[in-house]
Amino acid sequence: MDVTHKRVLEELKAFVLERDWEQFHSPENLAKSISIEAGELLECFQWNAEYSLERVQNELADVLTYCMLLADRLGVDPDEIILDKLRMTREKYPIEQSRGRSTKYDEL
Amino acid sequence: MDVTHKRVLEELKAFVLERDWEQFHSPENLAKSISIEAGELLECFQWNAEYSLERVQNELADVLTYCMLLADRLGVDPDEIILDKLRMTREKYPIEQSRGRSTKYDEL
Amino acid sequence: MDVTHKRVLEELKAFVLERDWEQFHSPENLAKSISIEAGELLECFQWNAEYSLERVQNELADVLTYCMLLADRLGVDPDEIILDKLRMTREKYPIEQSRGRSTKYDEL
Amino acid sequence: MDVTHKRVLEELKAFVLERDWEQFHSPENLAKSISIEAGELLECFQWNAEYSLERVQNELADVLTYCMLLADRLGVDPDEIILDKLRMTREKYPIEQSRGRSTKYDEL
Repeated sequence: MDVTHKRVLEELKAFVLERDWEQFHSPENLAKSISIEAGELLECFQWNAEYSLERVQNELADVLTYCMLLADRLGVDPDEIILDKLRMTREKYPIEQSRGRSTKYDEL
Repeated sequence: MDVTHKRVLEELKAFVLERDWEQFHSPENLAKSISIEAGELLECFQWNAEYSLERVQNELADVLTYCMLLADRLGVDPDEIILDKLRMTREKYPIEQSRGRSTKYDEL
Repeated sequence: MDVTHKRVLEELKAFVLERDWEQFHSPENLAKSISIEAGELLECFQWNAEYSLERVQNELADVLTYCMLLADRLGVDPDEIILDKLRMTREKYPIEQSRGRSTKYDEL
Repeated sequence: MDVTHKRVLEELKAFVLERDWEQFHSPENLAKSISIEAGELLECFQWNAEYSLERVQNELADVLTYCMLLADRLGVDPDEIILDKLRMTREKYPIEQSRGRSTKYDEL
C-alpha cells in the first residue's frame, strides 16, 4: 500500500477510534453503509444526468470511506483486490466479443 | 496520487479503452453501477452476518472499481476527496458528543 | 385491505411458512433484501434507458414481494402507509412552487 | 385490481399530474428512485436491528410509491406480477430442499 493511501487509512481509523465507533463497524454494517451512501450518490442523478460536482464528490467520498474501512476490516488491500478482480473480468470479457457493447458476459 | 494507485487506475482505464467502453461511463451510469454493485456486496450479508471472505472481497472490488472510474471521470483524486470529507465529518461529529454512540449528527 | 391484496399476501406468507423462512425475515433482513432487489431492478437500466419489459417486471415483483412481507411484519397496510405518506408529501411540495420542477423540497 | 388499490394509484397519479411531474417519471428514473428510497429504508437499520416504526413505515411508503408508479408506467398490475414471480420462485425453491435454509437456489 502506498504512502498516501496508508495515511488516509490511518486518518480514517483515528477518526473512528477517537469516537469509539469500531463497535459499530462489523463487515455487515459497513456493507449496509456502502449501500446507503451509494443511494445518496445516485440521488445526485435522480431526475437527470446533470449534477453538481461538489455534491457528487462528497457522496463519492462517503462511499469510498466505508469501502476503505471494510477493506481494512477484512484485512485486504483495496488496490490489490481491484487488480485481482480485473484479472477475472478480463477473462469474462474478451476484447473481441465485448468491444463497443455493454452486453453482460453471460449473454456475450 | 501514489504510484500503486496510479498504476491501478491506468490498468482500469486500459481495460475500458481496449473495449471501447468509455461511451457507457457517464457519471450517471457509473453512479448507477456503484449502487448495483453495492447491492451485490450487501447480498453477501442478506440473511445473516456470516460471510465468505472471497465473495465479499470480489464484490467490494467491483464497488471500488466503479468508484475509481467515477473519480477519474470527475477529475478528482480518491484519497483527497476522502480527506476533504473527513474534515467536514469531524466537525459534524465532535468527539465529546459522539463517543460510543451511533446517533446521526442532526440528532446529537 | 382489498380481497386481491389479501390473497396475494396470503400466498406469499404460505410460501414462506412452507419453507420455514419466517426466521430469516426480520425487518432488518427484509430491508436489506429490498435494497438488494432494487439494485437488480436498476441493473435493467445500467447502461441506457432501454429495457426488457419482462426483466423489469420480474425485478419489480421481487422488490414488491419484500415490501409486502415487511409491511406485514410491521403490521401496517401498504395502501394506507402510501396514503399517509402522500399527505405529508403534498405539504412539502405545494403545487405552485413545485410544478414542472424536480427540485427537492428543502431547496424550493 | 382492487378498489382500494385503484384509488391509491389514482391519488398518486393526481398528485404527479398536478405538479406536471410525469416528464421526470421515465422507467429508468423510477428505478433509480426505488434504489434511492430503498437506501433510506436501509438507513433505519444501519447500525443495529432496532428501529423506529414510524420512520421505517415512512421510508417503506416511499419505496412502495415509486413501485406503484413504475408498475403503472409499465402497464402491469402489482398484484399480478407478484403472483407471476411467486410461481417461478416456487419452482426454484422446492419445499424439500429449501426448508429452514437461506441458501440461494443456485447452490441448493
